[in-house]
Amino acid sequence: MAVPASRSIVEPADVARARRAVADVARHTPVLPSLTLSERTGTDVVLKAESLQRTGSFKIRGALNKLAALGDRCARGVTAGSAGNHAWACAQAARSRGVPCEVFMPVEAPLSKMEGCRALGAVVHVGGASVDECVVLARARAQEAGMAFVHPFDDADVIAGQGTLGLELLDDVPDLAKVVVPVGGGGLSSGVAIAVKSQRPDVEVVGVQGESVAAFPESMRRGEPVAVSSALTIADGIAVKRPGELTLPLVQRWLDDVVVVPEADVAEAIVMCMERAQLVVEGAGAVGVAALLGGQTTAAPSGTTCVVLSGGNVDAGLLATVARRHETEAGRRLVMFTRVPDRPGSLARLLVLVGEAGANLIHVEHLREGIDLHVRETAVQLTLETRGREHAGDVIRCVREAGYDTDVMA
Amino acid sequence: MAVPASRSIVEPADVARARRAVADVARHTPVLPSLTLSERTGTDVVLKAESLQRTGSFKIRGALNKLAALGDRCARGVTAGSAGNHAWACAQAARSRGVPCEVFMPVEAPLSKMEGCRALGAVVHVGGASVDECVVLARARAQEAGMAFVHPFDDADVIAGQGTLGLELLDDVPDLAKVVVPVGGGGLSSGVAIAVKSQRPDVEVVGVQGESVAAFPESMRRGEPVAVSSALTIADGIAVKRPGELTLPLVQRWLDDVVVVPEADVAEAIVMCMERAQLVVEGAGAVGVAALLGGQTTAAPSGTTCVVLSGGNVDAGLLATVARRHETEAGRRLVMFTRVPDRPGSLARLLVLVGEAGANLIHVEHLREGIDLHVRETAVQLTLETRGREHAGDVIRCVREAGYDTDVMA
Repeated sequence: MAVPASRSIVEPADVARARRAVADVARHTPVLPSLTLSERTGTDVVLKAESLQRTGSFKIRGALNKLAALGDRCARGVTAGSAGNHAWACAQAARSRGVPCEVFMPVEAPLSKMEGCRALGAVVHVGGASVDECVVLARARAQEAGMAFVHPFDDADVIAGQGTLGLELLDDVPDLAKVVVPVGGGGLSSGVAIAVKSQRPDVEVVGVQGESVAAFPESMRRGEPVAVSSALTIADGIAVKRPGELTLPLVQRWLDDVVVVPEADVAEAIVMCMERAQLVVEGAGAVGVAALLGGQTTAAPSGTTCVVLSGGNVDAGLLATVARRHETEAGRRLVMFTRVPDRPGSLARLLVLVGEAGANLIHVEHLREGIDLHVRETAVQLTLETRGREHAGDVIRCVREAGYDTDVMA
Repeated sequence: MAVPASRSIVEPADVARARRAVADVARHTPVLPSLTLSERTGTDVVLKAESLQRTGSFKIRGALNKLAALGDRCARGVTAGSAGNHAWACAQAARSRGVPCEVFMPVEAPLSKMEGCRALGAVVHVGGASVDECVVLARARAQEAGMAFVHPFDDADVIAGQGTLGLELLDDVPDLAKVVVPVGGGGLSSGVAIAVKSQRPDVEVVGVQGESVAAFPESMRRGEPVAVSSALTIADGIAVKRPGELTLPLVQRWLDDVVVVPEADVAEAIVMCMERAQLVVEGAGAVGVAALLGGQTTAAPSGTTCVVLSGGNVDAGLLATVARRHETEAGRRLVMFTRVPDRPGSLARLLVLVGEAGANLIHVEHLREGIDLHVRETAVQLTLETRGREHAGDVIRCVREAGYDTDVMA
C-alpha cells in the first residue's frame, strides 16, 4: 500500500508531532523476543510490552496528545467516561498537565481502577449502568462545567497519540515485517498502522478482535459502523460495540485485515504470557498472541513479526481463574470420581494410593446422596494436583489398577 | 566503602570482561519505574525487570561467562544440578556456544523447566531426592565424561557474570542510591555489589532472604558458612541451605546488610508485582519488593532505589494460589457462615439477598452435621466475590439486618 495522496483525518505528521507531546510522561516500552512464539511459528516474533506503559495501557498516549492539542481549551479540566483504562489514562494525563479531571465509571468497574484515578487527583463519579451511559454523562458534565470531553478513540488527536507506539516499533525493530494489534474502538490499530505504513508501506498490519464483541468485520463489509450486541468477554478492554465514525474508514484504509479469535483462546494466551513471557497481559491485550497461536493470522515468513500487548490491567481474581482453568486443561489439576466401601479406613487407603503416585490432594468430598450407589458404598470426589497430563494419566492408572472404578471429571 | 586494595577472588575488571562474554545472548533487561513503591516510600523506586531475561532469570549471565572462561575446556560439554533456573540457563548457554549439556533435576522440579531444558537440546536426568543430590550427580557425571561442571553460585566466573546486571544499573539509573537484591547462594548479590560499589562506593547494596531458608545472617555472624535446615518456601529459587565458600566472604565484604522477610509478605509481593507492575515475578525474585513494603529495609531518602526482580519462572498453579489468597485478604473474596430454616425456599431467599447486595456467589454448601443447630435449622456456608473490603462489609450488614446470624470465616 502506497502512502495515500489525499488529506486524511490523521496524517503521519500528526503522529510525529504527537511523539513530542507525549514523550515526557509516556514510557518508551520495551520490545521483547518471544522464544515460545518464535518456536511455534518458526520465525522471529517479538512482543511490544505496552502492558508496562504508565497506568498499564497504551491509552495514556492518546490522552496526553489530546490535552496537548486542546491547550488552553482544557484549562478548566477534562472529562471521560470509561470502565477503566481510558479513565485512568485521562486522570494521569490531566495530573501531569496540571488540569482538573472528572471521570464517569460504571458501578461494576474494578475498584482498583477507581482508586487509581482518585490517587491521581481525579473526581470519580460512580454510576451509569454501562460505559455508553458514562460517556453520555461525561459529555454532559463537560458542557455544563466548561471542561473538555475526551473520547476514548473516535478523535483525531487521540488516534495520532496512539500512533506513537508505531513509531517506537520502527525504531526498535529494524526488520519489522508484520504488526499484529488488538482492535477495540480502532484508535490504537489505525494510529499504529498510519505511523508504520506511511514510512514502511511493505509492513503488514493485522488487527484482532475477540469473538464476543467483534464489530469491525461486519462494519467493514457494510462500509458503515454497525453495532453488535454486547456480550460478556474476557477481553473487556476492547469490548466496543460500535466502531467509530473516524476510526472505521481509517482501519479500512490502513489495515491489511481484521481477524477474530475465540474467547477460550484469549484465556490461554493470557496464561502463555504469564508462564512463558513473564508478563501480565489483560484479555484485550492478549488477542494478538491468541491469533498467532490459533492461526487466525500467520507470522511473516521473513523479517520480524511484532505482537502488540496493549495493556496489563487485570485483577488478581481473573488471573487466578484463568490460571486455574489452564492447570486443569494442562492436566496439572485432576478431578476424579470414584467409589469406596462405606467403612472405616476406606478413604485413607485411597488417599495413600494417590499420594504414593505423587499427586497432591487439594480437595476431597464424600457424596452419598442422589447417586446410584450400593448401600455399603460411598462416592468420593478427589481434586488432585499433578505434574502434567502424563503424570495425571499415571495416577488414574494406579487407582484403576488397585480396583477402584474411576471417572475423570476434568 | 572504598575500593579494596587487596586482590579479590572477583575483581571489577572480571565483571567488565564478563559483560563482553554475555552480551550477544543475555538481554539488557529494562528498568521500570514503580509508581506503587514510589508512592508508598515517598521516594523514587525503580524495578530491574530481570524476570524478563532469557530463560526467565539472571542465571544465564553467570552460565555464559563460565562457558567463556572455560573455553576449550568445555568442548565436551557441561553439567549442572538444579531444580530449575540454573539448569535452564546452562542449557541455553551451552546451546548458544554449541556444546553439549546434561542437567540433573530432582523429581519434583517443575515439568515446564524440564521441557524447557529438553527444548534447548540438553539431556535431562530426572532423579535425585534433593538439589544437593543432583549437584553431586552432576559433578560425578562431569568427571566421568570429561565434561565441565558448572556450579550455580560458588564460582568466580559465575559471580562475575551475575555482576553484569550491576553494570546495567549504573548505565540506566544515573542517580542510583541503593540496590535491593535477592540473596540465595550469594552469586547475584555479591556480583552486583562488586560491579556497583567498585565504581560508586556511595551506593548502598542490601541483600534480602526469605525467612524459611535464611542461611546468610547467621553465617555472617559466625564468619563461616552455616547450613540451615531446609523448609518449604515460596521463594524456592533462593532456597540455598548453605552459603558458598567464595560467596560468603564477598557478601560480607561488599554488601551493606542482609535482611530477612516473612514468607507471607513474599506472596503479597508477587501479587503486587502482578497487579500493579504487570510483571510475573517468582517468590525468590520478589523478596526485595517484600522488604521495601515490610520495612525490613527502607528506600534511600534521595536518589533512586532499585529493586532487582531476579526471576519470573513460576507456574500458573502457584500464581493462581497466591492471587486467590490475596483476593480473600483484600476482602474481594468473602466466606460467610450462617443458618437458615430447614424448609423449601430458605436458601433461595438468602441468595436473593446477597445477589441484590451486589455479591457474586462462587460456592454454597449446606452443613447439617457436627454443628450445634436447632433441629429445624440448617447451616450454610457461602463463598462470595465482592468488590473489596468496604463492599464485603456492606454485604455482611445486609445479611445481618435481614435477621441472619452470620459469622465471617475469611
